[in-house]
Amino acid sequence: MRSVVTAVNERRWDFASDNTSGISPKAWAAMAEANEGFLPSYGDDKYTEAAADAFREVFEIDCEVFFVFNGTAANSLALASLCQSYHSVICHETAHVETDECGAPEFFSNGTKLLLAGGPNGKLSLDTVDHLIMKRRDIHYPRPHVLSLSAPTELGTLYRPEEIRELTALAHSHGLKVHMDGTRFANAIAALGVNPAQLTWQVGVDVLCFGGTKTGLGLSEAVVFFNRTLAEEFDYRCKQAGQLASKMRFMAAPWVKMLPDGSWLEGSSHANHCAALLVDLIKDAPDVERLFPVEANAVFLRLPQRVHDHLKRRGWSYYIFIGGGARFMCSWATSEDAVRDLAKDICEGAAQT
Amino acid sequence: MRSVVTAVNERRWDFASDNTSGISPKAWAAMAEANEGFLPSYGDDKYTEAAADAFREVFEIDCEVFFVFNGTAANSLALASLCQSYHSVICHETAHVETDECGAPEFFSNGTKLLLAGGPNGKLSLDTVDHLIMKRRDIHYPRPHVLSLSAPTELGTLYRPEEIRELTALAHSHGLKVHMDGTRFANAIAALGVNPAQLTWQVGVDVLCFGGTKTGLGLSEAVVFFNRTLAEEFDYRCKQAGQLASKMRFMAAPWVKMLPDGSWLEGSSHANHCAALLVDLIKDAPDVERLFPVEANAVFLRLPQRVHDHLKRRGWSYYIFIGGGARFMCSWATSEDAVRDLAKDICEGAAQT
Amino acid sequence: MRSVVTAVNERRWDFASDNTSGISPKAWAAMAEANEGFLPSYGDDKYTEAAADAFREVFEIDCEVFFVFNGTAANSLALASLCQSYHSVICHETAHVETDECGAPEFFSNGTKLLLAGGPNGKLSLDTVDHLIMKRRDIHYPRPHVLSLSAPTELGTLYRPEEIRELTALAHSHGLKVHMDGTRFANAIAALGVNPAQLTWQVGVDVLCFGGTKTGLGLSEAVVFFNRTLAEEFDYRCKQAGQLASKMRFMAAPWVKMLPDGSWLEGSSHANHCAALLVDLIKDAPDVERLFPVEANAVFLRLPQRVHDHLKRRGWSYYIFIGGGARFMCSWATSEDAVRDLAKDICEGAAQT
Amino acid sequence: MRSVVTAVNERRWDFASDNTSGISPKAWAAMAEANEGFLPSYGDDKYTEAAADAFREVFEIDCEVFFVFNGTAANSLALASLCQSYHSVICHETAHVETDECGAPEFFSNGTKLLLAGGPNGKLSLDTVDHLIMKRRDIHYPRPHVLSLSAPTELGTLYRPEEIRELTALAHSHGLKVHMDGTRFANAIAALGVNPAQLTWQVGVDVLCFGGTKTGLGLSEAVVFFNRTLAEEFDYRCKQAGQLASKMRFMAAPWVKMLPDGSWLEGSSHANHCAALLVDLIKDAPDVERLFPVEANAVFLRLPQRVHDHLKRRGWSYYIFIGGGARFMCSWATSEDAVRDLAKDICEGAAQT
Repeated sequence: MRSVVTAVNERRWDFASDNTSGISPKAWAAMAEANEGFLPSYGDDKYTEAAADAFREVFEIDCEVFFVFNGTAANSLALASLCQSYHSVICHETAHVETDECGAPEFFSNGTKLLLAGGPNGKLSLDTVDHLIMKRRDIHYPRPHVLSLSAPTELGTLYRPEEIRELTALAHSHGLKVHMDGTRFANAIAALGVNPAQLTWQVGVDVLCFGGTKTGLGLSEAVVFFNRTLAEEFDYRCKQAGQLASKMRFMAAPWVKMLPDGSWLEGSSHANHCAALLVDLIKDAPDVERLFPVEANAVFLRLPQRVHDHLKRRGWSYYIFIGGGARFMCSWATSEDAVRDLAKDICEGAAQT
Repeated sequence: MRSVVTAVNERRWDFASDNTSGISPKAWAAMAEANEGFLPSYGDDKYTEAAADAFREVFEIDCEVFFVFNGTAANSLALASLCQSYHSVICHETAHVETDECGAPEFFSNGTKLLLAGGPNGKLSLDTVDHLIMKRRDIHYPRPHVLSLSAPTELGTLYRPEEIRELTALAHSHGLKVHMDGTRFANAIAALGVNPAQLTWQVGVDVLCFGGTKTGLGLSEAVVFFNRTLAEEFDYRCKQAGQLASKMRFMAAPWVKMLPDGSWLEGSSHANHCAALLVDLIKDAPDVERLFPVEANAVFLRLPQRVHDHLKRRGWSYYIFIGGGARFMCSWATSEDAVRDLAKDICEGAAQT
Repeated sequence: MRSVVTAVNERRWDFASDNTSGISPKAWAAMAEANEGFLPSYGDDKYTEAAADAFREVFEIDCEVFFVFNGTAANSLALASLCQSYHSVICHETAHVETDECGAPEFFSNGTKLLLAGGPNGKLSLDTVDHLIMKRRDIHYPRPHVLSLSAPTELGTLYRPEEIRELTALAHSHGLKVHMDGTRFANAIAALGVNPAQLTWQVGVDVLCFGGTKTGLGLSEAVVFFNRTLAEEFDYRCKQAGQLASKMRFMAAPWVKMLPDGSWLEGSSHANHCAALLVDLIKDAPDVERLFPVEANAVFLRLPQRVHDHLKRRGWSYYIFIGGGARFMCSWATSEDAVRDLAKDICEGAAQT
Repeated sequence: MRSVVTAVNERRWDFASDNTSGISPKAWAAMAEANEGFLPSYGDDKYTEAAADAFREVFEIDCEVFFVFNGTAANSLALASLCQSYHSVICHETAHVETDECGAPEFFSNGTKLLLAGGPNGKLSLDTVDHLIMKRRDIHYPRPHVLSLSAPTELGTLYRPEEIRELTALAHSHGLKVHMDGTRFANAIAALGVNPAQLTWQVGVDVLCFGGTKTGLGLSEAVVFFNRTLAEEFDYRCKQAGQLASKMRFMAAPWVKMLPDGSWLEGSSHANHCAALLVDLIKDAPDVERLFPVEANAVFLRLPQRVHDHLKRRGWSYYIFIGGGARFMCSWATSEDAVRDLAKDICEGAAQT
């Protein structure tokens, strides 16, 4: 959905994305601790084992866990493991797998088609999913085999557990598996105040891609199979696809530290808080319109041109989307001061006439 | 776009598709003549050479020609030869490559994405093509690399040469190549009364998939590269993709007979005529509406339920599309009697109240 | 294994391959009969149904049958249906899937590796297969998932049923599936005098690619799944891979005629006879050496240069393999006169000094 | 070539591989420095730009540089960019792309075949390369399009610049491109005492995969295109293949620090020294045989069973290869004390009778 990124002479990248921040202190400390001596490579080390166990504890289920390098790979490998090339994946038309992975799902699966469903606020509606499942049942069209949800969505909105359950029930009743893109899963959990299990396997999610990068790690995305049968030979799939790290310890260690003590949620809670704060601070700015409910760490605004111009002068960088929406993302590293600076500039720009 | 095929207890397949007919007498005779003695296999025979020459003559250019088994393979291989996996192909949302090839373009190209443009009557409009070319220019989205046109379109309509020229000029100005799906190319030429060159390379088409099957051959689709550079190693591509026939002579011989003497157009002219006749015969039927201009051999009608019911009783089979449109296809083998039978049944059904 | 094909100024293609012949009278008659009126396309016609039934009868099992265009596609699709991309296929180093399909198995499966086993006379030996299964059991190497046999082999030799049983037992004991490349399956059955069942599912073959082209059809290869579970969605796989014929009737009808009455074996018996005759006629030629047991329709000879020269002067075309072996193939269309002509020229050439 | 990895109850991983070590102090410090504030993601940051410049300086050429996550991806993407699916890559039968990447080159290229050449000490011999280039020139076999060399080889040996020049000249004369797998490129340069340019583009290498991981980085492999034309759209290829890091700064920063001041060679020099020391210390051990010249950081030994037993008791882990060879790898982190400990245990084991 992204159309234009503002010119790169900008000076402030705080809100351009939640991956413009670095590695959080806690994740860094965990990596430093893991940087000791010699350890087996390719995930046969104690950190990787402990990290997998930590996921099992946090999700309250004996899941199977794999660590890969980025979200594109996590989503694409998970989808490929659920599909054959002649299958299709139903997702929202604004889903990241459709709009921002450069055809990676099609590449990893050797041709699986994405079928795009609609629905307000970036969320799939039951009827459009049902329509896509039913509209073609002949061999001349790829057969729907997976439903892909995002938590939060690309528009920063959230499904409630009961909404997910309705969608997964529909999917499962037609034999589809359910994938969840959780690149900002921690933001979803922090915002909803539910347990990870309540947002995933307890409401029918089969595979979750749980993002570490946007949660403050350097790079590490966990692919979590709640159904172990679906994970069969996923290790081979990762290896062949160039997603098996030799020094896996550095991708695993931060999870070991941050999952058990709940600190994985701190940065995301803070990010969510910053987003809410930004919305609050600009709520009276004339001609500035919030485009979608702000439920996690993304704020989409419709801005008049004078505000765009002012923000540009002030050096802010952010994505502009088709139709003119501006996206501001908060992360674990966002400071309240920065939020106030940005809000002030938005209000200033809006006040100009 | 196809949604439902009517139940298969039907008795009359005349209009279900233009591939429910057999092999035309002329094509059959050519195959029979080629069925003599021993000949080199894999296309090193005299018929294949003569067929390629016949294409060069008919198209008035030193093109490169390859024969493959069906239209899905022809389109997919041609597109794959113009693309890398991280590219995209712009086509109409009703194009056969999108709606009826089960993800073959994505499969053969290892992931190339189809970008769907709109436009009335199954024809691409310049502005939607332009929009798709321009909307994303970043590496997070597959880069448009091919424009795919159909002649005729899936809705049985036709681009005029000047319309094609406008589209290809737009495409070429952005570095895109132009592919034409000509599974019914003969119908297009017969209807427009132009030379093959005038509808293809003279108006900017780079590669044409020229269908033989629907023109009366058993199976044989020609992939015609007007730009020989683009054809480099296409023979390897065909071989690896399981599209190199050992007994190629049978796929080549009919072209040798039918291209030079113009008889390749006879069956298609007849088919176009039958479609026009059908439209004329049902033009006064109440509540029966022609959905698109009938410019080649396809007739799309909106029929009231009572007509559907009546046609079902009478044993007619045809495709029903999303929204309720009914498609009737004419071929080289369609008889005027059958057209009159069908028209009579449509009118009878419509007259019932 | 093929290295050089002799120059294409040759005049006699009788023995170059068993696909330099045309369509046999019986197959032609069946196609002619099927060329009547309108029939459902894509295999929903009565001929395709009857052909599948004929296979079930001949193989004495409720198998699942699909028709594709050529042997490369048949083998590659069958293998792809048994594999994931990170798996491997064990085959003989001279197997057609390795030496003459231009990487098609790797292409259709999106990367499956072929592991090459040895064994005398083109036949897999148990120990080399066992070695390949066992040598690597780690995720850094593709996991063996299929054993591929050929009947007859590329060198014209034959496995006996009990040899096949030993190989399939080994394969199955390690979880591998068994594929049989039967591009000349009729030659194997004709030579061994066993029932089709005895050479396939009764000795552990899971999927057979049964060649029609080299048996006298124009083009039609049957993929026969003895285990129906393995055939799941194979129709989708064929469609997406450009291997679903619209006018399927022409690929099915010859089987309907030739399987039930046993005539499918006549041409192959004749071909085998011609090969044996050739061997007999040249057995006293000096310096001419038979390279492998002649058990079906292929004769491999080591010829001194003077014989190559003489055959070239006489216009014979044939394949020359690495190491200098010459291959002469007999087909349903080979005449005994031609065999005698060729034998005479070989003997003449050999007699020159 | 790897066959068995010793049981994982071992305690000492020092020599199991050169990726069992962690991140070197210099690389760590660079990452720490880069972990400041907000920066553009996906490689648009100052560190990535500076790193690319550093490569240009060290290689004395205006090369194009991309950073990916691991060596499997680097090699596979580089090869895929030089090939079509119907091409083949010539490499040594012991090359990592063949033996330890689980079919990744075939996967990323959608089916490109690896053709295995021989040659003593893991090095390609001219005649076997020439043989593979020439043996098949027909469309039934994948056309050789790339020669892949390794520096050092998987057996720890080294090509001299003039040897590389001979191989690349042969390759180029037949239209092949040349890829170098330099996962331990620093070890090669440190051992040979030549400039990077002298081992690469000055002797005909087109693309180098320069490994960071085994040089002491956490993960970062540089794909260096000396011919910029070949790099066209490689950024799209990386993105689609899940190899574009959002927080690229951490993969780039260590190179910025370590390339310009020459410190990238320190760890590798030390590793090479440790390997030489090990060889020296065990040279008198009875029945212990060095298998290949020790030219970089790998030591391959043939050990009698009593030595294997003793090493196992002492808790050493290492790879055992087909035929019984044992591989000991040294890295930047290997201590001389550990080398002496290992050597002592080898000698003790050998002395037992």
